[in-house]
Order: sequence, then C-alpha cells, then structure tokens
Amino acid sequence: MEKAADPKGVCLVIGAGDGLGGAIAKAFARDGHPVCITRRARNLDQLEALAVEIRAQGGIAHSFGVDARTEADMTALFDDIEARIGPLEVVVFNIGANVRFGLVETTARVFTKVWEMACFAGFLAGREAARVMGPRGHGSILFTGATASLRGREGFAAFAAAKAGLRAIAQSAARELGPKGIHVAHVVVDGAIDGVFTRSNRADVETLLSDDRILKPDQIAANYVWLHGQQRSAWTHELDLRPWTERW
Amino acid sequence: MEKAADPKGVCLVIGAGDGLGGAIAKAFARDGHPVCITRRARNLDQLEALAVEIRAQGGIAHSFGVDARTEADMTALFDDIEARIGPLEVVVFNIGANVRFGLVETTARVFTKVWEMACFAGFLAGREAARVMGPRGHGSILFTGATASLRGREGFAAFAAAKAGLRAIAQSAARELGPKGIHVAHVVVDGAIDGVFTRSNRADVETLLSDDRILKPDQIAANYVWLHGQQRSAWTHELDLRPWTERW
Amino acid sequence: MEKAADPKGVCLVIGAGDGLGGAIAKAFARDGHPVCITRRARNLDQLEALAVEIRAQGGIAHSFGVDARTEADMTALFDDIEARIGPLEVVVFNIGANVRFGLVETTARVFTKVWEMACFAGFLAGREAARVMGPRGHGSILFTGATASLRGREGFAAFAAAKAGLRAIAQSAARELGPKGIHVAHVVVDGAIDGVFTRSNRADVETLLSDDRILKPDQIAANYVWLHGQQRSAWTHELDLRPWTERW
Amino acid sequence: MEKAADPKGVCLVIGAGDGLGGAIAKAFARDGHPVCITRRARNLDQLEALAVEIRAQGGIAHSFGVDARTEADMTALFDDIEARIGPLEVVVFNIGANVRFGLVETTARVFTKVWEMACFAGFLAGREAARVMGPRGHGSILFTGATASLRGREGFAAFAAAKAGLRAIAQSAARELGPKGIHVAHVVVDGAIDGVFTRSNRADVETLLSDDRILKPDQIAANYVWLHGQQRSAWTHELDLRPWTERW
Repeated sequence: MEKAADPKGVCLVIGAGDGLGGAIAKAFARDGHPVCITRRARNLDQLEALAVEIRAQGGIAHSFGVDARTEADMTALFDDIEARIGPLEVVVFNIGANVRFGLVETTARVFTKVWEMACFAGFLAGREAARVMGPRGHGSILFTGATASLRGREGFAAFAAAKAGLRAIAQSAARELGPKGIHVAHVVVDGAIDGVFTRSNRADVETLLSDDRILKPDQIAANYVWLHGQQRSAWTHELDLRPWTERW
Repeated sequence: MEKAADPKGVCLVIGAGDGLGGAIAKAFARDGHPVCITRRARNLDQLEALAVEIRAQGGIAHSFGVDARTEADMTALFDDIEARIGPLEVVVFNIGANVRFGLVETTARVFTKVWEMACFAGFLAGREAARVMGPRGHGSILFTGATASLRGREGFAAFAAAKAGLRAIAQSAARELGPKGIHVAHVVVDGAIDGVFTRSNRADVETLLSDDRILKPDQIAANYVWLHGQQRSAWTHELDLRPWTERW
Repeated sequence: MEKAADPKGVCLVIGAGDGLGGAIAKAFARDGHPVCITRRARNLDQLEALAVEIRAQGGIAHSFGVDARTEADMTALFDDIEARIGPLEVVVFNIGANVRFGLVETTARVFTKVWEMACFAGFLAGREAARVMGPRGHGSILFTGATASLRGREGFAAFAAAKAGLRAIAQSAARELGPKGIHVAHVVVDGAIDGVFTRSNRADVETLLSDDRILKPDQIAANYVWLHGQQRSAWTHELDLRPWTERW
Repeated sequence: MEKAADPKGVCLVIGAGDGLGGAIAKAFARDGHPVCITRRARNLDQLEALAVEIRAQGGIAHSFGVDARTEADMTALFDDIEARIGPLEVVVFNIGANVRFGLVETTARVFTKVWEMACFAGFLAGREAARVMGPRGHGSILFTGATASLRGREGFAAFAAAKAGLRAIAQSAARELGPKGIHVAHVVVDGAIDGVFTRSNRADVETLLSDDRILKPDQIAANYVWLHGQQRSAWTHELDLRPWTERW
C-alpha cells in the first residue's frame, strides 16, 4: 500500500544475459524498479529464468525476446513498455560481442556482426530512450563499455571499433541530452567478469573470485544503480571499474 | 570489544575548506568515520568551526593546522593521527589553487606556489598515506581533480600543470598500490562548485543552485564515500562530475 | 628505362575527392609514386579529371570507380592494382561522411550509411592493405581522422561513432602491423578544410584562406608524405593538424 | 639579397645533451639556423664539443652553460641571445629527468628536483620564448615529451607528474599562442633513445640499433625540423614517435 502506484520508473536492460546484464536487472529490481529484460529470442528460456528469479526476490520483471539490431523491433519494444508497463526511467545497454581475430583474418561479416550488436544496437537503444525520455526531461541511459572502448589492441579491430563507436555515441548523447535533464553515462569495465564465458575459458575462476581478482557482476551493477541515483548537480559521465589486482 | 564504539577507520581530509573539503569531511563523519581535518594555520578558526559542526551532528572531528607543502609536517601529521587517533582508512587530498594568468604574466613564484599546493602537497599526502596503509593492505586515497587535470587551456599553464601532475601521481599510485589492496581514485570535478569563491564571483549563485546548475559540495562528497565503499573486485580509478547543464 | 623498374611503390588513395584526397594523391605523385585513385562510380568524371591533372604534372595516375563499402570490390581492387600496376607501398583511406542530426532525428539508415563509408570501408582498406603488404614487411597505411575521432559532440552521434571506430581500427592495426614492418598512422584533421563543401557553406572562404585560417589540402597532404617517409626507428602513429587560429 | 647572410632565425635548444638534444641542434643547424645550445655549467666541456662538431659541419653554434631552473638566468639567456645573436625563431625544451622509485621511497627532494628540471624549467623556457616571440607574431616552441607524459605508471610518480605537467604547459601555451602566430608542439617520445644512458644500461644496443628497435636521435630530430616547417594553415600540436617494434 505504501508504494502506491509504484514510485519508481521502469528499468529496461537490453542484453540481460547470465553475467553482468542479469546482475544489473536484479540490482535495479532490488532498488524498487519494475524491470524489463531482453535477450535474443533464442535465449528466451534463460531470460525467463532470470525473470522468475527476480520475481522470487519480490521484484517485478518482464522478459522480451528482441533482436536489438532491428530498428522496428526496438521502436516497438519501447512503445510497448511505455504503453503496457510504465514510463521508462532507466535504460541500460549491455550487449557485448567480444571476438579476437588478426586483421587479415577478420571477415566483413564478422566486423559487421560485432558492430551491429555492440554499436548499432546501442545507438538504437540510446535513440529510443531519448525519444521517450526527452519530453519528460528526466531518466538515465547507461552504456556498458570495455577496455577496448578506450583503445584498439592487436586482434581487436572489430571489437574496438564497435566499442569506441558506442563510447562516441554515449558522449554525443550526454552532451545533447544532459541539458534536457537526461543522465547519460558510460561504464568502462576493464577486466574479466565472472560469468559463463569466463568460467568456460579459465580454470581458476573460483580462486580468482575468492580473492576478488575478477569483476563480480553484482559489484559492477551497484555502480549502475549509483549512477542513476546521482543528483543532477553532479553527474558522472564516465567511470572505470577493474579488480584491485588488474594491470592497466 | 574495544573497537565496539568505532568500527570505522579514521578519515583524513587535507584541505577541508568551506566548500568541497568541508562537505567531504561531513559526509565521512556521517558515514561513521572519525575525521581529521586540516587547513593552513591561518584558517584555523574556520577549521575549528567545521569540527564543531561535525561534532554537533554526532560525529568525531579533530582539526589540524598544517602546511601540507612541508614534508616534515606531513610526516608528523600522519604519525600523530596514527598514534593518537587511530589507523587511517581514508585519505582525501583536496587542496586547490586555481589562478588565471597569461603565460608571459605567470611569474616563477606563482607557478611554484600553485604547484606546491596542488601537486607537491598531493604527492606528500599520497606518499604518507601509502606509507601507513601499505603494511595494512587496505584503505582509500582519493584525489580531487578538475577540468584542468585533463587539458591545458589558455591562461591556465600553472594550474593545469599542477593538476595534470596530481593526476599522474594518482595514476602512478593506483597502479602501484592497487595490487597491495589500497584503492586510489581521482575525481574530476568539471564545473563551478558552490562555496565562498563562487559566491563572491558570481551574482546568480542562488538561481544556479536552485536549478542545480552548479556543483553542490554534498553531492560531490557522496561520490567520495561511494568510492571508498566500492568492493575491491570493482574499483573505480577515475570518475568525472559535472552539473547537468554544463557544456563540455 | 630512366625510372628503372620504378623505385617508388604504388600509392592508393581511397576517397580521392576534390579536397584533401585529391591533394594527397597529387602530393604522392609529385614525390614519385604512381598513384591509384578511387571514388564512387558516379563521380568518375571528376576522378578522371584528377588523373589528367596528375599526369599533366608528370605523374602516373590510374583512376578506379569503386564502392569502397563492398568487400568483394575492395579485394578485387587491391588484387588488380598488385597484378597490373605494381606493389602497393602506401594506402590512404580518406572517405569522410560528415552529417549532423539530433540523436532522435538520426535514422538507422543514416547511422548505417555513415558507418559504412567512414568506418567499415576503412576497415576493408586497412585489411586489404595488410593482406598485400604483410608478406613484404613494409609499407604505410594512413587514415584520415577528424575532431569527432576523439570525442562525440551533440548532433554527431553517427559521425563520431564512425570516426571513433576508424581510429580504433587504426590503433589495432598499428599494434598488430608495426612489428611486421608496416607503418599505420592516423591523422586528426581538426578544422574546416578548403574544398567544395566548405566553399558552398561559408561565404568568407577566400578571406579565411588568404589568412591561413582554414586547412589547406596541400599543407595537410604534405604530412601524409612525411609520415610515409619516416624511418622505422621513429614512427608516428597519430598527429593532429589545425589552423593556427582554431579554437580547441 | 638583403637577407643573404642569414635567412633563418636563431634556434635555441635547452638541454642539448649527448643524445636527442644534440641531434636536434645539429638538425636545425643543418637546416640553416644558427643554434644556441645549453647544458648545465658542469657539462660545459661536452656542450662545447657539440658546438665544435656543428661548426665543423658548416653550422653556427653558440654554447651556454645555464641552469634552466633559475628564472633570472633564463631571462638573461633569452635577452642575451636576442641582443647578441639574433631573433629567436625556434625554442626547443629538451631536459629530461627520468627516475624510478616506489612511491614511499620517493623523497620530497627527488620529487622536487625532477619537477624543477622537467617541468618548471620547461615553463620558464616556454614563457621566455612567448615573451620574445609574441610581439613578432611568429616562431616555434617545441617540447620533448615521453610515455610518462600521457600516463602514470608504478614507480614513476615523480617523473610522470613532471612530464604530465610539461604537457599541460604545452597545451596551455598552444591555445594561447597559436592565435598569436606562434606554433607550440609537444613530441611524445615513446621508447628508449640511443645515447649514453641507454648504452650504459643495455647490453644489446648495437643489435637494437642495427634493426631500428630503439629510437635514433637523428630520426626524432627530423620531426622537430618538420614541425617548425609546417605552414600555419595546418599545424600539429602533438605527435608520438616510437620504434616499429615497440609494444604500446
């Protein structure tokens, strides 16, 4: 009764996978936001499992199988959420697409796919968020960055091009939308994150985790909630996050 | 049992003036840290007034008139706090020294004074903090930066040289001390801060404040407390802070 | 007979338009390189006029109407040049695509077109250059950047995303190809360049030119030739270029 | 005809040691500039040997034993050169002071000495150059930077603070002096340079040199001459230089 009509706006997490995206969704749900979570249709079972987990913790969760690279689908998603669930207050873009190929071995297809997922979809998310939040004059748009957002390394032409592009979108959006009351931030996640990918590629994950030597999704997620909570006299546009032992 | 009353380590704020430094001290005091605050001896009355204010709010505060540019004084300050008050858990370096002169009009004296206050004193603070925290393997060292930390503008050769130097110290310290368990962060404050200086230079401060168009010290300070609270699997080294309407 | 076996390798300029690209082609031709110049098929007349101009100055020029965004066409272009004209020694990617739209007004189509021209085509150029130069262990790959390569501004989400992506490609390529003997550089052109676009948008071009207040294509081009001539013990990866009066 | 005797203005190289500084002086002398070279008084024999070498190659050289950290000495140096030798056209600041100490092991004395040599002296050089060049509205001021100019690494708090400060001075000076017709540039030398220091610290210098794996002073110096020669419609403020095999 006391939370009459739900005082907190809807949070949408685009790319709510098993690692960071899921943790971000759970963190905003714990903070009292109804959350909308998306993954590609082929991962809908896992997405729904995340929704169930959030609901079991007392949160509100809606799952959407969406191809974030399709303009019409993204526009429809935002319209649907605004119409059926409520006004969007937080939009998080969290789709990654890390691949590693030598330059000559990078096909046009790979280069394009990585860009579609990590950059173009982020543009669509930011633009749609700006579209619905703009007239209201408040809300937060948060982008997940990576080490490659800041510089290109050998083997990472495709990934770095996409992540650097996403960062440029975040900067352009921040400068345009800030004075309209919308907080745009970019989080540079610099290091391995605990999750399915890391667990399948490194034998020592448990040891690293017990000693905090890899990034814990919940700890990263807490910063997204913090950023959204910043009062508008002191907004952060960019912060980096890395484990204490990371070399950089 | 003996630490029952005070579970949190000591926080030292070097440069606890009327604006940001005072707000940082109050924020850490509210968070349960005994705070030690310093200013130059000639500002001791104002410093003691800040201590009285902190105590009135239920906090613990100790004031020190210290010349932060003097190596022996800084070493003695850290030793004194460790011996009499308790182990330092947070050290904040917050001395600024903004001046504006054309290059030819900048005297060696001005250039040196600005460096002593904004860079050299920051080195001493960081080094002394590393000295006492290093063997314990935990603690936070937080530096206040500015727009000039990131690039030099016409008229700001002295200030930008000092602030860029301080940022380089923070980066060096972070890379050296991170793997020892000590969190080093640099906060880029990009915009005018409410305080005596701004109030005496701008007629429209109240209007700007009511609309959040200048940085509010309490809002900035909250980020210092947040940084100290970050769990070591996900530490931020640098974040920026600016009002929503700031052009950058 | 006198140019026995042609001592200088072929220079390919992708995007040899009326302004900078043409000037770069002429500069390398004056420096003794046979030059291959490309534009889209629809600009073939202007491209051929450039070739005629280069030949009139005693240079060797071959023009190619190529869609630089098409993988097969780019691969065929490089193979064709290597087979018919000679080994590529310098490849310059100079296609721009500056547009300005508010974020909400930026269509997926515009965002994609800008990326295809300014980023994806640059990837193809860099990759193909790496493919043919790699086994020989020498050559230069030069990319034209812009202010937007370094940061996103309001209205430039599409352009900045593409240019930041191109810069990330250049960095990745430099780190991968440098140790293979191939010099990769990125030139940040920061300011208006004299040319058709500037002349049609600003009434004061002649005044600006007479006072060197806008970038002169020949002066920019000289830096590309300089970069290619750097001996490998001291290679530049990035330099900026702006008129003396530019604010930055 | 009237400028027959000496068409080029005086070049002053502050910090003309055995490595890069000497090579810069020789390069400007070869380019037709009378050169003034300075080192500390205790290295005057070596400095005079450099002057002799320059004269043997047909150049004009004047050597000055100067403490570049002393304001009065620097002012006197510039006045003396302007009065006795001719108007300064190029001023190069090339004093380094690389040291490596852990943060806690860095004394205030070391930190200050490094700053005096690498940052404060650079400020004096830039200011004095601005003073004499400003009224004439032309000339170049060139600063030697290093990897540490861009970021602080463990063990390099003192060096990075000084070099980052010097870079901030160069940026401030460029923005102030550019519109007055004076070209200010900063050269980021990223890698080991051949010279006495490197030769005494590495056993494999000859091998590295023969394969261009360390920076050759003459090759670096050529870029200083190039920067001075840039026409004012396209000035570079910063470029990096590193060997082809360098990891970065």
